[in-house]
Amino acid sequence: MKLADLPTPSLVLDRAALAANCRAMAARAAKLGVRLRPHMKTAKSAEAAKMATAGQFGGITVSTLAEAEYFAAHGFRDIAYAVGIAPAKLDAVARLQRAGVAMTLVADNVAAVQAAAQRAGELGAEFSLLVEIETGGGRAGVLPDSPELLEVGRAIAAAKGLALAGVLTHAGHSYKCKGEAAIAAVAEEERAGVVRAAERLRAAGLPCPVVSVGATPTAMFARSLAGVTEMRPGVYTLMDLYQMAIGVCRREDIAVSVLATVIGHNPRTGRILVDAGALALSHDKGAAGIMANVGYGWVLGERGDRLDGLFVAEVNQEHGMIASPSGAPPWERLPVGARVRILPNHACMMAAPYARYNVVERGDEVVAVWDKASGW
Amino acid sequence: MKLADLPTPSLVLDRAALAANCRAMAARAAKLGVRLRPHMKTAKSAEAAKMATAGQFGGITVSTLAEAEYFAAHGFRDIAYAVGIAPAKLDAVARLQRAGVAMTLVADNVAAVQAAAQRAGELGAEFSLLVEIETGGGRAGVLPDSPELLEVGRAIAAAKGLALAGVLTHAGHSYKCKGEAAIAAVAEEERAGVVRAAERLRAAGLPCPVVSVGATPTAMFARSLAGVTEMRPGVYTLMDLYQMAIGVCRREDIAVSVLATVIGHNPRTGRILVDAGALALSHDKGAAGIMANVGYGWVLGERGDRLDGLFVAEVNQEHGMIASPSGAPPWERLPVGARVRILPNHACMMAAPYARYNVVERGDEVVAVWDKASGW
Repeated sequence: MKLADLPTPSLVLDRAALAANCRAMAARAAKLGVRLRPHMKTAKSAEAAKMATAGQFGGITVSTLAEAEYFAAHGFRDIAYAVGIAPAKLDAVARLQRAGVAMTLVADNVAAVQAAAQRAGELGAEFSLLVEIETGGGRAGVLPDSPELLEVGRAIAAAKGLALAGVLTHAGHSYKCKGEAAIAAVAEEERAGVVRAAERLRAAGLPCPVVSVGATPTAMFARSLAGVTEMRPGVYTLMDLYQMAIGVCRREDIAVSVLATVIGHNPRTGRILVDAGALALSHDKGAAGIMANVGYGWVLGERGDRLDGLFVAEVNQEHGMIASPSGAPPWERLPVGARVRILPNHACMMAAPYARYNVVERGDEVVAVWDKASGW
Repeated sequence: MKLADLPTPSLVLDRAALAANCRAMAARAAKLGVRLRPHMKTAKSAEAAKMATAGQFGGITVSTLAEAEYFAAHGFRDIAYAVGIAPAKLDAVARLQRAGVAMTLVADNVAAVQAAAQRAGELGAEFSLLVEIETGGGRAGVLPDSPELLEVGRAIAAAKGLALAGVLTHAGHSYKCKGEAAIAAVAEEERAGVVRAAERLRAAGLPCPVVSVGATPTAMFARSLAGVTEMRPGVYTLMDLYQMAIGVCRREDIAVSVLATVIGHNPRTGRILVDAGALALSHDKGAAGIMANVGYGWVLGERGDRLDGLFVAEVNQEHGMIASPSGAPPWERLPVGARVRILPNHACMMAAPYARYNVVERGDEVVAVWDKASGW
C-alpha cells in the first residue's frame, strides 16, 4: 500500500526518523550515565516504545492510566505514571500491579500521600511514590530547599503501604528558551535542583534510590547529569517544529506528519484548502510564537519534500487553510485531490487523537500499520 | 452510578440542557419556515442526533466520512457531508449509498466536479452535489455573483453521474461578531447571498431545490430565511462559552463539560492542578479573546454550580491549571481528590477526542452512557 491509497486525514510515521531519534537519545543517556525511561505520552505506541527502550532497562513513562493499561497489555512491566496521583486512580494502579506491572507514582503534597496510604490499606496494596520537585517549570512540585520536601518524603516513608522511591522533576521551562547554551543552563538547574532534593531526603535518613529528570531539550543539551539516575524525555521520539524552532532537532528528524488532501482553492484569500483542520492537526501553535510562517504546521509533498515554504495558516474543525509566505501559493502544483503531508507544530498534540500510525521508511510505501493508545 | 464513580477526565452531557437546546432550535426552524438538518460534527452521537432530529425530516449534516459511517450504522439515511469533496472519498460515499443512505456532497470548483464525474463513471455511482457559496466567511465557496457559480453549477448539471442538488453556505463570520443585532445582520448577508446564488442558477435553467444555510449564531438570530429551504446549525446542541460570549446562549444552556480531579495545589503560582489538560479540554481559546477570565474553560462544582469565577488558565498535555480572578483560589473547597466540571471554550473541540458521553439530568447521577464517533 502507498500513502496515495490511504484515506485522509491519516497519521504517517517515518520509522527511519523514529529509529534515528531513538538511537540518538540512547547515546545521550549512555554518555550522561543515566537510565533512559522514555515518556510514551508522545508516541503512545507499543512498537515505538519497543524501539525507544531497545538496549535500555525497559522502563517507560506515561501520562494517563489509559496509556499505562495499553502498554501493560503490550508487555511493558515497569511504568512510571508521571502526573500527580489522585486517590480515585489507585484502584486501576493496584489492578496493574496485580497483573505484574511495577508502577511508580508521583506526589507533591501530604494530602495526596495520606489519601494514597488510606487507599493502599483498603486495597491491601503497596504503592511506590516519587516526590515531585519544582526546578523552575512553575507547574507542580515542592521546592528542593523547602520544608515541604521533607514533610512529603517523611509522610511517604512513614506510611504503611507506601514506599518512597525517590524524586522526580520536569524542566518545563526548557521549552521557553532557545539554543544549546540557554537549554544547557536550564538542564543544570533541573539537575542541581533534583539532586539537592535527593541529598536532603538522604540527609534526613530517608531512602532516595531514584533521581529522575525529564524533558527532551534538557536531555539533549545537559552537560552533566551527575547525581541523576534516569531521564524521561518523550517528544524526541517524534520531534516537531517546536523542537526545531528552539534548536533541539532538524527538520529531517521530525518523524510524524498528517497526510491530507487538497479540497479547494480560494483565490480571494490566497489559500489552498485541505481536509485536515483543528482536530486533525491540533490547535497548538506553540512554534508560531518563535518562528515566522509556521502556523499549525509546515506543508510537505507526499514524499516529504518541503513545498515552497507553505504552512497551515488557519484551521476550522475539519478545514485547514494553507498559505504561502509569498502570498501566491503554487495552485497548479497542488490541484484538488493532491496529497500533502503536514509537519506537527507539537507532535504530542497532533498524534493524540489518531487510532493508528501508517508507517513509512523515508518514502511513500506503507510498510506497517501500528496501533496506538488514545483517549482516557 | 454517580459522577463521583467515574474515572477522570470524562465527558459529561446534561441531557436536559441538550433537550432544551434541541427544542429551541426546532422552534426556530419552524418559525423561520425551513427544514432543520442539524450538524452532528459537534455532538457526534446517535442519541444526540435522535433528539436533534425529533419531529424533523431526519436529515443530518456531518464533517467527516467517519461521522457519516457512524450515523449510517445507527440508522440515519439522509446525510449531507458539508466539506468540499475530494475524489478519493467517493468510494466510501458510494458504499454508503449502496447501503441505502442518501448522501449529499459539496463542491466549489470545476476540478472537483470533473473528478467526481469521472469517479462516478468508474464506480457506476451517482452523486448529488451542492455548490458551496461564499457569503462572507472567507473560507471556501464561489461568490453569489461570480461567473464561477454558473460554471460549477453547469459542470455538475451536465455531468453524467452527477446531480445538482442546490446551494449551501456557512456564515463563518457570524462567530466574529457579538450580540443579536450584529449577528442578525450577518444572517441576512448569509441568506441574501445564498438565495441570490440559487436565483442565478435557476435563471440559467439549472435546478436548485436545496438552499442551505448553517451556523448556530445566524440560525438563532436570523429575522427571515425567505428563499432558504434548510439550516444546518450544530454547536447549539451542546453550546459553549464562546456562544455565551457572543450572546447566543446562557451559561445554563451549555450541555457538556469535562469531569476532572484535583491533583495538587501550587501556592507559589496560585494554581489548583487538575488531571484535564490540553488533550482533555482542547487547546481552543476562542472565547478568551472576547471574555476575561475564561482561558480553557470555566470551572464548576461536581453538581454544576459555578465556583468563584475559577477558570483553567493554562494547560499542558494532561495538566490543567485553575486560577481565580481574585488570585486566591479556594484551596480548602478543592482539596486533592475533589472533582470539578469544566465548561468548554469550544464544545466541538472539547468533545471530539472522547469515546463516550456520561449522561446526567441536571444532577450527578449518570443515567446513561452514549457512544459517539471520534477520529477519521
